[in-house]
Amino acid sequence: MEKRVAVLPGDGIGPEVMEAAVKVLEVVGRRFNHTFEFSYGSIGGDAIDRHRNPLPDETIALCESSDAVLLGAVGGPKWDNNPSELRPEKGLLAIRKHFDLFANLRPVKAVPSLLQASPLKEEVVREVDMIIVRELTGGLYFGEPSNHTNQSGVDTLIYTREEIERIVEKAFELARLRKGKLTSVDKANVLESSKLWRKIVDEKRKMFPDVEVEHQLVDSAAMKIITNPAAFDVIVTENMFGDILSDEASVITGSLGLLPSASVRSDRFGLYEPVHGSAPDVAGKGIANPAAAILSAAMMLRYSFGMEDEAAAVEKAVNTVFEDGCFTKDLASNQERALTTTEWTDKVVDEL
Amino acid sequence: MEKRVAVLPGDGIGPEVMEAAVKVLEVVGRRFNHTFEFSYGSIGGDAIDRHRNPLPDETIALCESSDAVLLGAVGGPKWDNNPSELRPEKGLLAIRKHFDLFANLRPVKAVPSLLQASPLKEEVVREVDMIIVRELTGGLYFGEPSNHTNQSGVDTLIYTREEIERIVEKAFELARLRKGKLTSVDKANVLESSKLWRKIVDEKRKMFPDVEVEHQLVDSAAMKIITNPAAFDVIVTENMFGDILSDEASVITGSLGLLPSASVRSDRFGLYEPVHGSAPDVAGKGIANPAAAILSAAMMLRYSFGMEDEAAAVEKAVNTVFEDGCFTKDLASNQERALTTTEWTDKVVDEL
Ligand SMILES: CC(C)[C@H](C(=O)O)[C@@H](O)C(=O)O
Ligand SMILES: CC(C)[C@H](C(=O)O)[C@@H](O)C(=O)O
Repeated sequence: MEKRVAVLPGDGIGPEVMEAAVKVLEVVGRRFNHTFEFSYGSIGGDAIDRHRNPLPDETIALCESSDAVLLGAVGGPKWDNNPSELRPEKGLLAIRKHFDLFANLRPVKAVPSLLQASPLKEEVVREVDMIIVRELTGGLYFGEPSNHTNQSGVDTLIYTREEIERIVEKAFELARLRKGKLTSVDKANVLESSKLWRKIVDEKRKMFPDVEVEHQLVDSAAMKIITNPAAFDVIVTENMFGDILSDEASVITGSLGLLPSASVRSDRFGLYEPVHGSAPDVAGKGIANPAAAILSAAMMLRYSFGMEDEAAAVEKAVNTVFEDGCFTKDLASNQERALTTTEWTDKVVDEL
Repeated sequence: MEKRVAVLPGDGIGPEVMEAAVKVLEVVGRRFNHTFEFSYGSIGGDAIDRHRNPLPDETIALCESSDAVLLGAVGGPKWDNNPSELRPEKGLLAIRKHFDLFANLRPVKAVPSLLQASPLKEEVVREVDMIIVRELTGGLYFGEPSNHTNQSGVDTLIYTREEIERIVEKAFELARLRKGKLTSVDKANVLESSKLWRKIVDEKRKMFPDVEVEHQLVDSAAMKIITNPAAFDVIVTENMFGDILSDEASVITGSLGLLPSASVRSDRFGLYEPVHGSAPDVAGKGIANPAAAILSAAMMLRYSFGMEDEAAAVEKAVNTVFEDGCFTKDLASNQERALTTTEWTDKVVDEL
């Protein structure tokens, strides 16, 4: 197959980990006989510096002519005091909205060789294997009115039936392919938007009788992610709750440095990015952990290109490298010698 | 001193743990020479059954003529399918709003003898000693418009300057009396209401130069509560974020069963309740853990009655009983014999 990939390195360690992901994809291409064509564009702080726009038109055009987007990371102290419209995060919000990437998929799975890095007890997290499906283009992030004066501030949490239906369906489909359990998270005892959300989940479950469904209040879910995270399979929730819960869940297994994410819509187009941020403190030193970027590329192979075997091969290679005790600085305990970004990537390449 | 206490036992284990708290307060009264006068009222499911109203006028009148309110718990499966207006939680929301109890104080402190019950590693939680200050009468819970049809649902996150100022001041005052550190949690990179929130925190810090202030995004705070909870002293945040983060924080030390809470305003009136819910599954068996209710009574002594020594005496008694290895069923490991609610309460009474 021939696929065009838009690569948006962004800020901080973004460029370094994108380089690693591209290197791995090139190897996958050779081994499985695909051609990946990479084109580069700017986003976030990088784009603000070059074009005074966190999501320039050139970048949008580049993504429009691609089959999928790989993104490094955006943000950093340099742009923290910029006005709203010139903040790196605006680039991220704008690209999600422009391409209608309404479903953010955030898998969290325990990696046996990394459990010692978890803040939780090993027996609590050993069996964790969940995916959070976060609605990404609605709710408080985009509802109007949204403004503030010196006297008051307002944001609007609004969802239409269509917005809820499509994300809930996506989650049901995923649950069916996994362990068959869906936890819908809302605050239906207080919020009106949550009442509609819960109603629609209850309607849709009739179409997925093979999926077990439970409703959980967001406060209760925030507890269970810590006390019994292994009980979850697929969690589906609205944008703001999903932001909080997926970040909460990202730290329980000690493997934040290797969590990938996908932001997709109903066709196969999608944007793939590591969960970790731009990590300005380690940027440019060649020591960033490229695992999350490489695993994001694997998600792209799976979800956007339908290349299941290729995705699995990358994931297996990454796991093997960890099991062999090879770690970058963030994960290495003092005993082991930490590998550089390039050294670690080459181990994965060797496995492939 | 003479103080009138309104006792609202509510549902599930509410009545059992209130009985324990009242017993302890009576002992405190005898030992420190105070008279506490207890009057009982209904709220939640109990009030729905008796008066078809989760917060009857009689209960409001009772609370109005009292110096403070002690509440057990509300809710249970019996009322789960009631219409909105006849849900137990409505009683809770209504009493907070009626009495303008805008500040919810939720302390979380590690108890050495209970750390083995924590899902987190002991070294991560050993030093935890934080208090979450949640805004309780504004934001998404009360903003208008708030409604849903079959096609869309909307809630409104609105805060006025006055609402933000008073909760932020309360948090600064608390931080000054504790370790002098305040973490303000918002989503200022996305929400307009958060931008005003952050601005006001930055204004107020000038009045509290002795307090160290940091801003944290809510997603990042949800991670740090797990990865480095001991770094927090006072956290202040808006209603919905506070709901999620305070419940998240409540499970990290393994001592959910003994966490108290206070909902207060600018004068000394306040409502005190255990964080645990009505626990319908253990209700009526005489095995409920009364520690959280007793510690809520201690908070009442401190915040509403200004009885610092009395509050400290209760807290010390509770701690001693735990250190002596006395636990109710929820906390006892198999080796120990679990005490009933009454037996455990009597241990605390003996200590006093
Ligand atoms: C940067 C920010 C706007 C963004 C969000 O809240 O969506 C980020 O936290 C994320 O989760 O991708
Ligand atoms: C019962 C519910 C309305 C309430 C809330 O969300 O405020 C509860 O979760 C709490 O935190 O006291």
